Amino acid sequence: MSFRTHLESVVNQVDGSLACSVMGFDGIAVDTHQNEEAIELDLNGAWIEYANLLSQLRQAAEVLKTGEVQEVSINSERVLTLMRLVSPEYFLVLALRADGNYGKGRYVLRLTAPRIRAEL
Amino acid sequence: MSFRTHLESVVNQVDGSLACSVMGFDGIAVDTHQNEEAIELDLNGAWIEYANLLSQLRQAAEVLKTGEVQEVSINSERVLTLMRLVSPEYFLVLALRADGNYGKGRYVLRLTAPRIRAEL
Repeated sequence: MSFRTHLESVVNQVDGSLACSVMGFDGIAVDTHQNEEAIELDLNGAWIEYANLLSQLRQAAEVLKTGEVQEVSINSERVLTLMRLVSPEYFLVLALRADGNYGKGRYVLRLTAPRIRAEL
Repeated sequence: MSFRTHLESVVNQVDGSLACSVMGFDGIAVDTHQNEEAIELDLNGAWIEYANLLSQLRQAAEVLKTGEVQEVSINSERVLTLMRLVSPEYFLVLALRADGNYGKGRYVLRLTAPRIRAEL
């Protein structure tokens, strides 16, 4: 199973999905599955910013007592963004419309992260 | 009703709550309600880091097409942290144990933010 198949499967399972991607902490997407709505929203611009913040967070987390950061979510007026750590270099990101199924999104990312990790 | 009363009410309503606070984007808490478990985890250290990231995010969001950031969540091994924008200067933050009621936490923060805003 390729990355793309996993990403398509996430988008198909979660209502309101716009796009799902495997990204490096350098902000470069390894692979992406997105629909037309996602292209209009220029999600890539947002994700590059988020990757930068996420890598800062991981550094901050090293000195915190709350344990390693595993999941981050950034929700704006039009788009909900869920990110989940896959490995020390990569994370999964899923963008949903504001009315998308957020709980299902979290659940499906949690299941998918170890499958992606196994193929890295 | 004081800030403290609202914060206590959030902690009482959400199972697994550790602490709830009104914070400025400068990382300084205006008011906090926390239990003993929260003190051990040194949540303040985490929150100051998160406030810094949140203020960067808001600046980034200005150039994005996804709309203003309203809610951010940072989930680590031991603690789930939900943050919700109250005003351009302040946000609400709720920390939960990893097995806390995350969905209820999001819901209660959404209801509480406008009540806090009305008293700022």
